[in-house]
Amino acid sequence: MSNSDIFLGEVIGTAVLILLGGGVVAAVVLKRSKAFNAGWLAITFGWGFAVLTGAYISSGLSGAHLNPAVTVGLAIKEDAWSQVPVYFAGQLLGAMIGAFLVYVAYYGHFIAHLTDREVVGGPGTQATKAAASTDTPGPVLGVFSTGPEIRNAAQNVATEVIGTFVLVLAILTLGVNEGLALSGTGILMVALVVVGIGLSLGGPTGYAINPARDLGPRIVHALLPLPNKGGSDWSYAWIPVVGPLLGGALAGGLYQLAFA
Amino acid sequence: MSNSDIFLGEVIGTAVLILLGGGVVAAVVLKRSKAFNAGWLAITFGWGFAVLTGAYISSGLSGAHLNPAVTVGLAIKEDAWSQVPVYFAGQLLGAMIGAFLVYVAYYGHFIAHLTDREVVGGPGTQATKAAASTDTPGPVLGVFSTGPEIRNAAQNVATEVIGTFVLVLAILTLGVNEGLALSGTGILMVALVVVGIGLSLGGPTGYAINPARDLGPRIVHALLPLPNKGGSDWSYAWIPVVGPLLGGALAGGLYQLAFA
Amino acid sequence: MSNSDIFLGEVIGTAVLILLGGGVVAAVVLKRSKAFNAGWLAITFGWGFAVLTGAYISSGLSGAHLNPAVTVGLAIKEDAWSQVPVYFAGQLLGAMIGAFLVYVAYYGHFIAHLTDREVVGGPGTQATKAAASTDTPGPVLGVFSTGPEIRNAAQNVATEVIGTFVLVLAILTLGVNEGLALSGTGILMVALVVVGIGLSLGGPTGYAINPARDLGPRIVHALLPLPNKGGSDWSYAWIPVVGPLLGGALAGGLYQLAFA
Amino acid sequence: MSNSDIFLGEVIGTAVLILLGGGVVAAVVLKRSKAFNAGWLAITFGWGFAVLTGAYISSGLSGAHLNPAVTVGLAIKEDAWSQVPVYFAGQLLGAMIGAFLVYVAYYGHFIAHLTDREVVGGPGTQATKAAASTDTPGPVLGVFSTGPEIRNAAQNVATEVIGTFVLVLAILTLGVNEGLALSGTGILMVALVVVGIGLSLGGPTGYAINPARDLGPRIVHALLPLPNKGGSDWSYAWIPVVGPLLGGALAGGLYQLAFA
Repeated sequence: MSNSDIFLGEVIGTAVLILLGGGVVAAVVLKRSKAFNAGWLAITFGWGFAVLTGAYISSGLSGAHLNPAVTVGLAIKEDAWSQVPVYFAGQLLGAMIGAFLVYVAYYGHFIAHLTDREVVGGPGTQATKAAASTDTPGPVLGVFSTGPEIRNAAQNVATEVIGTFVLVLAILTLGVNEGLALSGTGILMVALVVVGIGLSLGGPTGYAINPARDLGPRIVHALLPLPNKGGSDWSYAWIPVVGPLLGGALAGGLYQLAFA
Repeated sequence: MSNSDIFLGEVIGTAVLILLGGGVVAAVVLKRSKAFNAGWLAITFGWGFAVLTGAYISSGLSGAHLNPAVTVGLAIKEDAWSQVPVYFAGQLLGAMIGAFLVYVAYYGHFIAHLTDREVVGGPGTQATKAAASTDTPGPVLGVFSTGPEIRNAAQNVATEVIGTFVLVLAILTLGVNEGLALSGTGILMVALVVVGIGLSLGGPTGYAINPARDLGPRIVHALLPLPNKGGSDWSYAWIPVVGPLLGGALAGGLYQLAFA
Repeated sequence: MSNSDIFLGEVIGTAVLILLGGGVVAAVVLKRSKAFNAGWLAITFGWGFAVLTGAYISSGLSGAHLNPAVTVGLAIKEDAWSQVPVYFAGQLLGAMIGAFLVYVAYYGHFIAHLTDREVVGGPGTQATKAAASTDTPGPVLGVFSTGPEIRNAAQNVATEVIGTFVLVLAILTLGVNEGLALSGTGILMVALVVVGIGLSLGGPTGYAINPARDLGPRIVHALLPLPNKGGSDWSYAWIPVVGPLLGGALAGGLYQLAFA
Repeated sequence: MSNSDIFLGEVIGTAVLILLGGGVVAAVVLKRSKAFNAGWLAITFGWGFAVLTGAYISSGLSGAHLNPAVTVGLAIKEDAWSQVPVYFAGQLLGAMIGAFLVYVAYYGHFIAHLTDREVVGGPGTQATKAAASTDTPGPVLGVFSTGPEIRNAAQNVATEVIGTFVLVLAILTLGVNEGLALSGTGILMVALVVVGIGLSLGGPTGYAINPARDLGPRIVHALLPLPNKGGSDWSYAWIPVVGPLLGGALAGGLYQLAFA
């Protein structure tokens, strides 16, 4: 695959992944959304189908990594590193675009949630009118990036390593068992694996399992002019980068030992 | 495909889509339904499997567009516009038939919900007897058409554009990656994409992402002799038509630029 | 297929269908079940995967009809009626066996639910000890057979006709579009269609959409020596037989008109 | 397949199965998890996708039994017993590794749940600080092993026999109908069958339906230095071993009678 196709595919695919993934969190946590309080199962299926959609759209262009940890795992498996920077760049940019699109799609709900006011102009005008609710608005960082329920670096890294290890190992072995690599029915399988990891290993840290998925939207959160948005929790930001990269590398290593 | 097969396929397929799609909303929002308050996840899976069912039934006849925005996206991709009016006509008529069948299947529940009375005759007789509940009946327009939680034309159009863009881009690229176009396993994928869009982008406007899905049932709502049914909210009706058509066209355009 | 294979396949497949289908209702409605109050989505997925399991197991023997309405629809489509009685007999017997297995698997929970006592012996001894709960036990007929939320024969028949019509039409056209008939990926599709029909059209009557699914377990309910079990509601029993058969026949007819 | 591949595949696959399966229970029952109280449907989908993930990863090495009851059923079907001990050993060791990984991934949540204190060091240090909650911590054995809601040996064995019988019969017949044995789309089918069995037959005993899935983690529970962890309920431990083995053998027998 050409570098331009890879870059384009990863930008588009990761943007769709984050648009739908961040979107389902917005849908469930922002006040006045129709999906408000729809629950953890909705969030995990939403992220799984976000993977499915982004991967289907981009698989023909870039092979649909959409995740630096996957790229690292595949690079180890195939001992091919030259295009890794192109994948990384596309993934980070795509994740930022996706996070921005969540902002656009849920703009009125962000404003209503954060200000208890209803927006009457479009994005940019920020004209608002008073709304009935007077509940204290909650933070919205969770729409963009992950955070731990119990803050403990070693523990949080371990959870992210384990979750990503399972994800990348499943992707690496899929190619062996199915001859599908990252297209066709294999994408459905990976999407359901992601639902499974979310259900099973998402409890402690919210399962970043993807550095771009966490870092790109966190940058966008820091840049966006949302009122009362709170901090971007940069002290935690290294964990969902390092943990998943380590998990992906470990999966690549186990693959070489046991499956190659 | 012949015009008559296309028309027939789109009528039948869209009718099934709206019967099951409107049906799941009726099931969840109408009092005394077994599925009352089953939640947003039930609604989104219900709509996804409505797409799956309608598309499977009609794919052999018409290719299962069932959505003017899909028709527009495919027309742009293939630069083939001559049969577009046949698709549009079948989709709108099918959506109206489907909405009417929801009315038939849930007739007693509509009456009970709207009048707090239990129907004892069949549709047409409307004989009712007093029921115990005295709650104020809610509106039933949501069984037929979408409406925003925060009413803001620019915002609502943007959300519909984004949701439909993702849907149509996934359908257009499916043909490239899978050689499935709109039949076979591809239909399952599209159905799960629709579940994903509902979970992730349905919060603000209820995700019409399909002009026929919204307009056809809205017309039926306006015509049906339901007591206390409330207005059909015609001032909003243009948004779920224009937004999805624009989103579908944008997806067709991006496809030409990046994937063709 | 030989008559003996058809009979055996339908007995085994329908028994599994009803074991899992009745089982999920027992799991959700019986007190002290781990799945108590798990909700409508759990019930509809449970029935869908019941279809999936029963159909996979039996498809190689009998083609996995498991439903007299499906048998009628396929007989109309293929104008082949000679084996219909064998299918019907296997389906009814299988449904009765399945319902009995639900009784065995949930015996202790039936007793606890109906008597507020805990069973200490196995089935047959019925030795019980007093349990803490003093709630009034609810009826358990719903574990076996369907019943309407609003009792109105014309309305209830109409809902069952519509739901079965969609099911059988999807099955009949699946063969056309997929070349799968009732095996392989087609079974997954049909299972998801059943989930969809449950979510969308199950609200009023609980979606029998299968005469054997309702009649067989109702007979078993009438025969079982459960304490305080209540009546078997025989006055309603004709509706989930007649409605689905009519719906299946209508689907066969539409198939001949539009798809053949 | 070589004994070493079988052993390795079963160890890895069963470890992933139990990591994700035990993980979803931890996610739903441990206080302060993001998935706390996510419900029975989340648990059943979590276990189903745990099967899917473990089976995909290991199918190329060992055929992905991951369950002694499946191994017994297949041994009966194929009359091939020589490798059964290798399968059993790999499954038990894998289950223990998986249970230990659940402990690592949820270490802080176990401690918080059991002590109402927040862990600040990593696993091993066990430094804790007081947390706000003062609820009585519940037992955590359910994260590792199953237990009945109504304790009655005959009843509990019967339920486990029935559930495992359905599982193994579905797996045995899958090979007949699909030519898929335990790879490819067949794995998705089996995963959804497992979701179905959980929904439908999990209410009384929590559906072990797999001796290794219950015994391995129970041993780990007994060994782990968790504070206030409670007993490992060894008096029940034979039931989820004997019941599933019996169910698997019965399925193998029926297969020989009706399907071979």
